[in-house]
Amino acid sequence: MKRELPSFTARDPGFRERILASFAAQRAMTLVGAEMTSVEPGCVEITLPFSTSITQQHGFVHGGIVGMIADSAAGYAANTLTDANTSVLSVEYKINFVAPAEGERLIARGEVVKSGRRLLITHAEVFCVRDGRMTLCALMQQTIMAIADKVENAPQGAQ
Amino acid sequence: MKRELPSFTARDPGFRERILASFAAQRAMTLVGAEMTSVEPGCVEITLPFSTSITQQHGFVHGGIVGMIADSAAGYAANTLTDANTSVLSVEYKINFVAPAEGERLIARGEVVKSGRRLLITHAEVFCVRDGRMTLCALMQQTIMAIADKVENAPQGAQ
Amino acid sequence: MKRELPSFTARDPGFRERILASFAAQRAMTLVGAEMTSVEPGCVEITLPFSTSITQQHGFVHGGIVGMIADSAAGYAANTLTDANTSVLSVEYKINFVAPAEGERLIARGEVVKSGRRLLITHAEVFCVRDGRMTLCALMQQTIMAIADKVENAPQGAQ
Amino acid sequence: MKRELPSFTARDPGFRERILASFAAQRAMTLVGAEMTSVEPGCVEITLPFSTSITQQHGFVHGGIVGMIADSAAGYAANTLTDANTSVLSVEYKINFVAPAEGERLIARGEVVKSGRRLLITHAEVFCVRDGRMTLCALMQQTIMAIADKVENAPQGAQ
Repeated sequence: MKRELPSFTARDPGFRERILASFAAQRAMTLVGAEMTSVEPGCVEITLPFSTSITQQHGFVHGGIVGMIADSAAGYAANTLTDANTSVLSVEYKINFVAPAEGERLIARGEVVKSGRRLLITHAEVFCVRDGRMTLCALMQQTIMAIADKVENAPQGAQ
Repeated sequence: MKRELPSFTARDPGFRERILASFAAQRAMTLVGAEMTSVEPGCVEITLPFSTSITQQHGFVHGGIVGMIADSAAGYAANTLTDANTSVLSVEYKINFVAPAEGERLIARGEVVKSGRRLLITHAEVFCVRDGRMTLCALMQQTIMAIADKVENAPQGAQ
Repeated sequence: MKRELPSFTARDPGFRERILASFAAQRAMTLVGAEMTSVEPGCVEITLPFSTSITQQHGFVHGGIVGMIADSAAGYAANTLTDANTSVLSVEYKINFVAPAEGERLIARGEVVKSGRRLLITHAEVFCVRDGRMTLCALMQQTIMAIADKVENAPQGAQ
Repeated sequence: MKRELPSFTARDPGFRERILASFAAQRAMTLVGAEMTSVEPGCVEITLPFSTSITQQHGFVHGGIVGMIADSAAGYAANTLTDANTSVLSVEYKINFVAPAEGERLIARGEVVKSGRRLLITHAEVFCVRDGRMTLCALMQQTIMAIADKVENAPQGAQ
């Protein structure tokens, strides 16, 4: 018996430029040093080079920052599938930390699991990279809401 | 019928200094401008003044940073109840965003719901403060693991 | 500084009868023996008498059944606040188990935390009752979607 | 760059019989009609035939019961990897519902994502099966605690 695998097509041909521009407008991402390193339909990757300025008291990357790149990668993965004038909003996410966030850099890979008209369910994995080896460091499950006719920089709300 | 309300006593008389020192060692908190403004047994408050450097593309505080202060406030709330030589680790958290994170500052209030020997269940609320009025902006539920005989700055793992 | 406390008013004067009728149509609740014991605006209580037929391998009530009454209590709490012709749907929930589910009966108390037009954020606590004493046994945080003009018994979807 | 894929080996050669016996002792699973249809190291499958007795008010399988089989499948997936005398406990889970639970039967597939000494992180997917076709209906992420030297039927606690 075959399980139906999700396969996503971007409705907006300019999705890549749109997502990269929106990410560039996130000052918080600049602050922590995160870069968007891949944008595909339903899948986005954010890379965060290690820096002592983003650590917690044990010298690892702060869990909140791990959550931040996971949240963004998965939210933008959802946004690749929306219309051009549609924004996305994190309704909620849940993240498990499975290993200390250390190494040369972290990679957060966000993917859409189910794309609905209003809600999208996404998933993210965060990996530590050291010596060319990736180790799973965190796992996230997220709910995203699509807000049509949303002008960037206008006030938003959870609903 | 009476519901048993949790009431917590810190076992370590020096818990306040210990928590403040650990927080001060979180470089990521300095980076985003967060301050620990209250430390009580089972309850910790972190305040984050608004700054454009921590915003997302709509000009609100980035959801990941909201998650970061909620995670820290609740984790340190758990840490107030442990022995002096015991560290805490976020096993996981789940956060719902209920209003845009705007205003003069955010206040994250973390509280212990259930304190077990190895695991502590905590809860956090994040409020936006504007014109002396607090509005709920996010809600978090979290699992914390206590790690005995933990030396700060030594490697840690999820298990 | 004052925190704004949520205060909820039911828009549908017949909310109580509507909720009780919908609950009565949940065959799964009859199967496990659950009863709806309180219906107020934004707050619903479900009581589950102990029975060996709902236990897991250690003789406690199965965690999945604890989740089931928490999910229902909180979902119906959301439904008390909607229009009469609006159904609710659990988008997701997250539950922590903090003590074994034992005793004479369980009480799940669901409450709305934030009521938006499309999404409602809810919270539930499940207590074990034994000898007139309530002990917290589980804690849930949930996202509910309101579906307008929904005819009961018609097909539904997550989005 | 290669991502390390988890590969699990059962330490207890009698894991299959042990898991099946524990599942058979879950009266709640008998009540809802669930069967354990596959037990492999780190991976367990539970099948639930459709029956009107497990439905909610719209005629679909109750979300709480979907959560129940997801929780059990993932918890037992964790239990396949423990020592013979070790029990598992659901610390918490988070589930997203992505499609109505309908069809001839549901299949919950639980898998271990990360196996630690005390905590295991698991994942489950629930599918609806109709006419030989599987559709994703729910997605779960879970934290499991391993309790060594646990005698079945003895009292347990969250910590």
